Amino acid sequence: MVSSIRFMDRVHAKRLRALRRRLEEAGVEAVLLTQPANWFYLSGFTGEAGAFLVGLHAVALVTDGRFAAQSASEVRGAPIVTHQGSAFEAVAVWLSQQSINRVGFDPAHLTVSQLDALRRSPGAGAAWVPLSGAVEGLRSVKDASEIAQMRRVALLGSEVMKHTLKALKPGVRELEVAAEADYQMRMKGASGPAFETIVASGPRSAFPHARPTAKRLKKNELVVLDLGAILGGYCSDLTRTVFLGRAPADIRRWFLAVREAQAAAIEAAQAGVACGDVDAAARGVLAGRGLEKYFIHSTGHGLGLEVHEMPRLARGQKETLQHGHVVTIEPGVYVEGVGGIRIEDDVAILANGNEVLTRVPRDLVEL
Amino acid sequence: MVSSIRFMDRVHAKRLRALRRRLEEAGVEAVLLTQPANWFYLSGFTGEAGAFLVGLHAVALVTDGRFAAQSASEVRGAPIVTHQGSAFEAVAVWLSQQSINRVGFDPAHLTVSQLDALRRSPGAGAAWVPLSGAVEGLRSVKDASEIAQMRRVALLGSEVMKHTLKALKPGVRELEVAAEADYQMRMKGASGPAFETIVASGPRSAFPHARPTAKRLKKNELVVLDLGAILGGYCSDLTRTVFLGRAPADIRRWFLAVREAQAAAIEAAQAGVACGDVDAAARGVLAGRGLEKYFIHSTGHGLGLEVHEMPRLARGQKETLQHGHVVTIEPGVYVEGVGGIRIEDDVAILANGNEVLTRVPRDLVEL
Repeated sequence: MVSSIRFMDRVHAKRLRALRRRLEEAGVEAVLLTQPANWFYLSGFTGEAGAFLVGLHAVALVTDGRFAAQSASEVRGAPIVTHQGSAFEAVAVWLSQQSINRVGFDPAHLTVSQLDALRRSPGAGAAWVPLSGAVEGLRSVKDASEIAQMRRVALLGSEVMKHTLKALKPGVRELEVAAEADYQMRMKGASGPAFETIVASGPRSAFPHARPTAKRLKKNELVVLDLGAILGGYCSDLTRTVFLGRAPADIRRWFLAVREAQAAAIEAAQAGVACGDVDAAARGVLAGRGLEKYFIHSTGHGLGLEVHEMPRLARGQKETLQHGHVVTIEPGVYVEGVGGIRIEDDVAILANGNEVLTRVPRDLVEL
Repeated sequence: MVSSIRFMDRVHAKRLRALRRRLEEAGVEAVLLTQPANWFYLSGFTGEAGAFLVGLHAVALVTDGRFAAQSASEVRGAPIVTHQGSAFEAVAVWLSQQSINRVGFDPAHLTVSQLDALRRSPGAGAAWVPLSGAVEGLRSVKDASEIAQMRRVALLGSEVMKHTLKALKPGVRELEVAAEADYQMRMKGASGPAFETIVASGPRSAFPHARPTAKRLKKNELVVLDLGAILGGYCSDLTRTVFLGRAPADIRRWFLAVREAQAAAIEAAQAGVACGDVDAAARGVLAGRGLEKYFIHSTGHGLGLEVHEMPRLARGQKETLQHGHVVTIEPGVYVEGVGGIRIEDDVAILANGNEVLTRVPRDLVEL
């Protein structure tokens, strides 16, 4: 245990150094971090309330009494400031004690009222400078130990998928399938689902973000099963689609087109390739089959401590993939009134080639 | 089904009228709503991406292609605008089409970058006026059919609690207990857990927001079990604490103090009473036992479509309880290094008296 903690101390210290270089480039003396995943990345803290301050020469975790004991047990190398009243007043006090005058904040993760509170806090004299995704940029590139962890959670998710696919049969409710999936995740050691498990059957499978309902699965329907687990803080995200019965020709054709679109996007997902080109690879296959209009979302997204991270594999995205990115590749076809088909896997981008982390056969399953 | 839909149409129409009165009072012509729970309350939409616009004379749901079919099937009485690019550009276009010049937004639920995007959208000419909690204020006061729904989800949560308490024994992992609780919720018809189920054992029970881990329960430990379900959109929230063995005198004394503090707060929770006085009732009992310093959070919170709503039962809160409020009452005692005790129930405030919606015995359970 001790050596593992020392290892994480070194990892956290390295991440802080990289972040501080970003602060210097951005011309700020500190950054206020309001996203729990960023706190965990930099300190190991798993709590959900507070703020993390990283200055060029000092750091502090600001939290409240509910998390005092927990933060003391989890966080090493960052002093903990426990506040009674407003977290943002405590932030202002710390900045003033540290004589910090220019502070970055992420405008996508600070509300209008939070920024207002920071500016109005007694003694607040710092200038607040928008600084987007400073930690998210670091987080998007995973090191070898992070990829190893993502491999573990992807395999766990794959086992859960294989188990849950066997539970699909006419008469079972969508909610019961979701219950079984989430139960299996935790029995296999996951801390929980990474997002609300999707079990969408029949015409509801045409809703990419359908929530499971009391609807029972029926013969001759499509069922989309989209699930992800959290293990050691990292997420997996995996989708398979099955047909309860013998699939009619149309559905078989759509399925094969989606599978081919996914294969083309996985093939395209290489270091140095623009994210938009990976999206275009999937979209091109579907366009060639006259199915592009039924593909109503983007091809994928980064995955890590959060289930949606940088980079985005979407139309026109110019950012290039690099070694250490982990992304989902999940094209789909959704036909209103009929149903939907989606196939999703998690892919780590390596220096040469890539590695599909999830391991579940992609054949059309007819049950 | 038809009559139920017509019923909801009438309910939604009534809620829109009440919201429009608030807009008139606030001197705005429309409000931008960015919280999914508010969309559901006003339209029945269960999707998670988009924006809902309520003007004095028109409404619109703005969402993207992923939710097009789903919104068409769920929403009646509000035109749906499906956007391709930025949701906020579509918002600006709609406002301009409607010739709306002053728009309210909730500064606690809009990020700095979202407000920036609204102000910069092509053709955006509207003035953006902070308007806090306009819908949340309406939502905090539940009507009879909402209280009936909250009674159902509270009873469902109570059944899950009673079932899960029986699963507690030395050797079982915290995560396995959480898995069992969440599984039971869905098998009983819940759409899922309202929050990450808390199973915290031994010294970890002193962390009020501990996440379940692979730790095994042990003989002679406290276990805090805090769980809630979602049913028909509404949440329950319920906590019990057990001792795995025969409780020593100290723990017995703390338990009885927490139970007495909760009883005092429930007794105090009446229409017309200030929320801060309910908190003071619980805190006073613990102070009388020398335990106040171990009560490190507030006494409770509103509960409804979200698990944390208005009003807050916290120190100094001047807002008064009224008929239709539903709140948790959940004092606790947390001793670092030893463990924690929390007892939580859901209480509906009625015109005369109140109703405890959750139904699980509050005796000290020694297993």
